[in-house]
Amino acid sequence: MLLTNENNFVELLVKNFARSQNQINTLNESDSELIKISDELFLAATTDSICEEIQEGLYDNPYMIGWMTVSVNVSDLAAVGASPLGILLNQTFLHDHTEEFITELQKGINDACNTYSIPVLGGDTNYSSVLQMSATALGIVKNKVMKRKGCMPEEMIYSSAKLGEGNAFAFSKLTKKKQRYNFLPMARIKEGILLREFASCCMDTSDGMFSTLDQLMRVNNLGLCIDQPIENFISKQAASICKENNIPKWFMLAGIHGEYELLFTISKENENEFLSTANSINWFPIKLGKVIPFPEIKIQLYNKMQSVNTGEIRNMFNNPNVDIHYFISELMKIDNNFRRIK
Amino acid sequence: MLLTNENNFVELLVKNFARSQNQINTLNESDSELIKISDELFLAATTDSICEEIQEGLYDNPYMIGWMTVSVNVSDLAAVGASPLGILLNQTFLHDHTEEFITELQKGINDACNTYSIPVLGGDTNYSSVLQMSATALGIVKNKVMKRKGCMPEEMIYSSAKLGEGNAFAFSKLTKKKQRYNFLPMARIKEGILLREFASCCMDTSDGMFSTLDQLMRVNNLGLCIDQPIENFISKQAASICKENNIPKWFMLAGIHGEYELLFTISKENENEFLSTANSINWFPIKLGKVIPFPEIKIQLYNKMQSVNTGEIRNMFNNPNVDIHYFISELMKIDNNFRRIK
Repeated sequence: MLLTNENNFVELLVKNFARSQNQINTLNESDSELIKISDELFLAATTDSICEEIQEGLYDNPYMIGWMTVSVNVSDLAAVGASPLGILLNQTFLHDHTEEFITELQKGINDACNTYSIPVLGGDTNYSSVLQMSATALGIVKNKVMKRKGCMPEEMIYSSAKLGEGNAFAFSKLTKKKQRYNFLPMARIKEGILLREFASCCMDTSDGMFSTLDQLMRVNNLGLCIDQPIENFISKQAASICKENNIPKWFMLAGIHGEYELLFTISKENENEFLSTANSINWFPIKLGKVIPFPEIKIQLYNKMQSVNTGEIRNMFNNPNVDIHYFISELMKIDNNFRRIK
Repeated sequence: MLLTNENNFVELLVKNFARSQNQINTLNESDSELIKISDELFLAATTDSICEEIQEGLYDNPYMIGWMTVSVNVSDLAAVGASPLGILLNQTFLHDHTEEFITELQKGINDACNTYSIPVLGGDTNYSSVLQMSATALGIVKNKVMKRKGCMPEEMIYSSAKLGEGNAFAFSKLTKKKQRYNFLPMARIKEGILLREFASCCMDTSDGMFSTLDQLMRVNNLGLCIDQPIENFISKQAASICKENNIPKWFMLAGIHGEYELLFTISKENENEFLSTANSINWFPIKLGKVIPFPEIKIQLYNKMQSVNTGEIRNMFNNPNVDIHYFISELMKIDNNFRRIK
């Protein structure tokens, strides 16, 4: 069985499963599962593992592994605007860890939990020949929910901050250009809670900007036109990694290691009030572009609006038999096409 | 670091973690975490992996792996008397599964979910060199909660059904005496919901009867005296495996592969009403003995009440470097002592 397309494989896995009558999102429709538990309360629940990242050597620092175990899950709570209730850990250890390794790992978990004010509720420990850290984060949403689905044409698309740090980290680590690149992304809990009042849809960039745009396009059956110049929204660190390595900046948006920011849409009538409320908590979201009626991802590249096949790019990375150098060479071919188009 | 004692290792892992102010159980105090979410609503949450069982060759049938992934988690909901809300799956696959393997695995999950009326809410898929299936089950408890802690001396201790099937399965599988032993335990959801009205404490036998008694003793700081003859509460299949293999029946209570029944305590004043209510749903719990004031596990063996060091026996199995034959020989030494005592 060829497992190159994550969405299709997941559909195969779940095809016979009955859905909950209390669940208000369908598959892929929100970052966390949303379950109605009383007239005005919804439970947000999400689960995610740190697994391939360890096996591929991308994460080898126990503190970072612990930090990410919590952050990747809390980020999915943030994207539905949930208030954290607690997290359950599912820790699979090797038999021969040093006490230092365990201490650093747990410190990463604890620091992240304290940062997000999310308590550890409980968990399970196992032993295996492969290290794996999983967690399930739970949150509460009152009254109104926020999903990936819900935007309308002409709405504005924003990012919670500049993008590209996640891919800059992954590129540096996997090409061994810079071994000690530090990457501890912050899940956007307080921003998510604020967004629930204003945004029409929201998703985190855990798989990178292009994957996020692609998923939002599919679930909304609408297009996203990123008409702001890339310089406006690419992170300084990501831009400088590109310059050092002589690769185009957009590669830092195309890779699937995200930065755990939020992409969201805001209607024109909400925009001013949203921005002033955001600014009042010292948060300065970045405008990226707008929603368009036809399902297509358009990005301003080389001074032209270019149609980008985000589905193809996203799935390129799902093949376990190819490496970073292959991806870069494939992206270079796509870049040549962008440059050729007049 | 020596990891022979699960309770101690878990205490090391969580020692710096802040607890939730809304969580009403402490570490080890209940089978599921219990979190107050409104005046009369509690969320029950539990997470468990199928990991070592696969690596040790104990579970090699994909249908069973799927069934167990759901059942071990739902059993923890049952032990707090929760009504199932939903389950999240965390599935780590190998890259080269056949479609048949995946289909059987998902069928085991689906059949278990349908049996317990628990919907799959969502999940995460990963790829690794080691197969691992984790899940997090969520449930709702209204008003009164049920924990491992709460029994009083002189109360009666009961089991939801006969015991020993889990260890009979594990013994057969690991000694290769009987390859095709079928074991698909049923989590006791409806019994747990009924018990919440009557029981003063409850725990599932996921780690076998002795481990369960040991944990109940420690958390309640009280003893448990199993004064009923073992023939009254050992399963027919477990008894016959013992006879075939010429091993004492109590070994099927000492091993750490449980049968996912519930052990619980009932006060004398509740006993009659409890039993008639149970019988009315065609459920016939089995009396095992009673709670005693001093923390000790006493079991009727060889026509005598014997003090059993359940902590020592339970921890014997936590050593990854020894096999089933070692455990049997160690249990035989303990059995010789029981037989010697007049």
